[in-house]
Amino acid sequence: MTDLKNDRLLRAYLRQPTDRTPVWMMRQAGRYLPEYRKLRAEAGSFMGLATQPELACEVTLQPLERYPLDGAILFSDILTVPDAMGLGLRFETGEGPRFDRPVRDEAAVAGLPSIEPEEQLGYVMDAVRLIRRELDGRVPLIGFSGSPWTVATYMVEGGSSRTFPIIKRMAYERPDLLHRLLDHLTTATVAYLNAQVAAGAQAIMVFDTWGSVLTPAVYRAFSLAYLQRIVNEVTREADGRRVPVVLFTKGAGPLLDVMSTTGCDALGVDWTTDLADARVFTQDRVALQGNLDPSVLLAGPAVIREEVARVLESYGRGPGHVFNLGHGITPEVDPDHAGAMIEAVVELSPAYHAGD
Amino acid sequence: MTDLKNDRLLRAYLRQPTDRTPVWMMRQAGRYLPEYRKLRAEAGSFMGLATQPELACEVTLQPLERYPLDGAILFSDILTVPDAMGLGLRFETGEGPRFDRPVRDEAAVAGLPSIEPEEQLGYVMDAVRLIRRELDGRVPLIGFSGSPWTVATYMVEGGSSRTFPIIKRMAYERPDLLHRLLDHLTTATVAYLNAQVAAGAQAIMVFDTWGSVLTPAVYRAFSLAYLQRIVNEVTREADGRRVPVVLFTKGAGPLLDVMSTTGCDALGVDWTTDLADARVFTQDRVALQGNLDPSVLLAGPAVIREEVARVLESYGRGPGHVFNLGHGITPEVDPDHAGAMIEAVVELSPAYHAGD
Repeated sequence: MTDLKNDRLLRAYLRQPTDRTPVWMMRQAGRYLPEYRKLRAEAGSFMGLATQPELACEVTLQPLERYPLDGAILFSDILTVPDAMGLGLRFETGEGPRFDRPVRDEAAVAGLPSIEPEEQLGYVMDAVRLIRRELDGRVPLIGFSGSPWTVATYMVEGGSSRTFPIIKRMAYERPDLLHRLLDHLTTATVAYLNAQVAAGAQAIMVFDTWGSVLTPAVYRAFSLAYLQRIVNEVTREADGRRVPVVLFTKGAGPLLDVMSTTGCDALGVDWTTDLADARVFTQDRVALQGNLDPSVLLAGPAVIREEVARVLESYGRGPGHVFNLGHGITPEVDPDHAGAMIEAVVELSPAYHAGD
Repeated sequence: MTDLKNDRLLRAYLRQPTDRTPVWMMRQAGRYLPEYRKLRAEAGSFMGLATQPELACEVTLQPLERYPLDGAILFSDILTVPDAMGLGLRFETGEGPRFDRPVRDEAAVAGLPSIEPEEQLGYVMDAVRLIRRELDGRVPLIGFSGSPWTVATYMVEGGSSRTFPIIKRMAYERPDLLHRLLDHLTTATVAYLNAQVAAGAQAIMVFDTWGSVLTPAVYRAFSLAYLQRIVNEVTREADGRRVPVVLFTKGAGPLLDVMSTTGCDALGVDWTTDLADARVFTQDRVALQGNLDPSVLLAGPAVIREEVARVLESYGRGPGHVFNLGHGITPEVDPDHAGAMIEAVVELSPAYHAGD
């Protein structure tokens, strides 16, 4: 494999000194970019893009052509794993993902097949290999998956939800059944992430978008416990280099404390918790990634620069901060505004690393 | 006015001893009750119910006929105030509220009329008076409003939103304009709440459903500051009795700390924060209301009883706890399950008050 020319991101995830704060954006390969929308239209559908390695690779690299980003993230979706289990994934316009065959009873859980990532999800590994080749060591490639809890919400509810009535009822009434589902999903997720690392992913991020809809006790039992298994079981080294594992529970707040004791390397933080408070919750046990409110990018460059400065100041001095949005960039953002954010990080962050 | 026969709720809001923990449910007059659905169908629409005092009164009292609740809450909506400002409120099936004339620029903000509650919102005060008469002192009546921030999200976005792009952009780009809107709305809200108290409301709750979509700094500037004005300016005594003020920011988490220093009497807490942690955040400065996950009511009575026990134990001994759900009861709940929850509170809570 080619030597990595820019390893700021990997170093920051491990809380090692860097010259400035590395930066990337969740959903940086996405609909706010006209070049993405063009390819997306040609492919005909989101999954059409994700399942063709050449297109997934091209889309992954698009934001790197525009901005001095410190990382690339695989273009894919958190629902590839249940899709590979044959649940019939569809993306309906304006409605989000739907599964034709939701998983709600004993028989459905028992019937979930095992996953052999290089077989059913070979298109993802092919994309990873192709992206690594095309990146040619410019920046590291981040692989990812959804958290078992978050992926299970879609599998059980049959799609997006606001209140998650079916899976929450299952958590309270049939904890044994939900644990069986999550256990199966975690095994598949670990295999999937390890296949990504084997194919070339240099860091791993696990997205737990819906962990914070639970009580703290239910979160620990049904989301955190499976994040913990992932941290324990994923490959942590490749090509003689540590593969950092980043966990992200949106809206985690004080839960960042227990998350930081899992042995993960870094935690994503959304904008509802100040990074200064997140450092208190996590006691500098892990690196922190975040946390500009994506809505800030709807404002003009002057406001963006000011808010970037606030986020940098909130984290403060020293290594261990990866600049990012607090959640994915939204489709209506002007690409120049994303550029203004990245430029501000590049310009303003070295002051926080001087002397490291 | 008639003497109050059951003042557990008012006493608990003021952290005074009671024989057991009082209980009521957010949206207790609502779609989960067949008798509500019947009246709602007859009235033809939600606002049809809310604007006819006899019907609003009947609906308010329905849950009291079924359950030994310790409080009644006015049947109304947080959007009555902007509706009275002439923004053209509609409730579209499956879509939630919509405003025909959203408020997005200087002219729209400048054009917002002042509100004279007994005129434009006389139907609400008539309902309050009628409910008080019909309650005949059985339990206290809670009046309410939306928080200025939360109501403003609907006025600016034109309806419900997931990411609040328009109002958040305004917060970052035109803070002066948004402050003007919130200031106007706060003046109207205070007048509205004071008219409710004058008409007979015995406690006041302010619902800030969307405060927690903000960064902590933006929350303090655009939501908390106006909650503070409400606490400062609402009538705190009526009929020689203190009128408790309850603030509820859904998903507040650690923000409960600053909320508890506003001088309010009590804070609502949703299920994502344990009451034990909420007590730490608020240092026993205020009473706490909550916080059973409404989804628990989808499970059976045995699970409900166990989870009620957990919530009671999490608050622990002593006065100052008002049992409630962590958010509104949902339409699909079996009314008997709500009954099981209330019964469990009645049976299990006296142990936490013995010797007070």
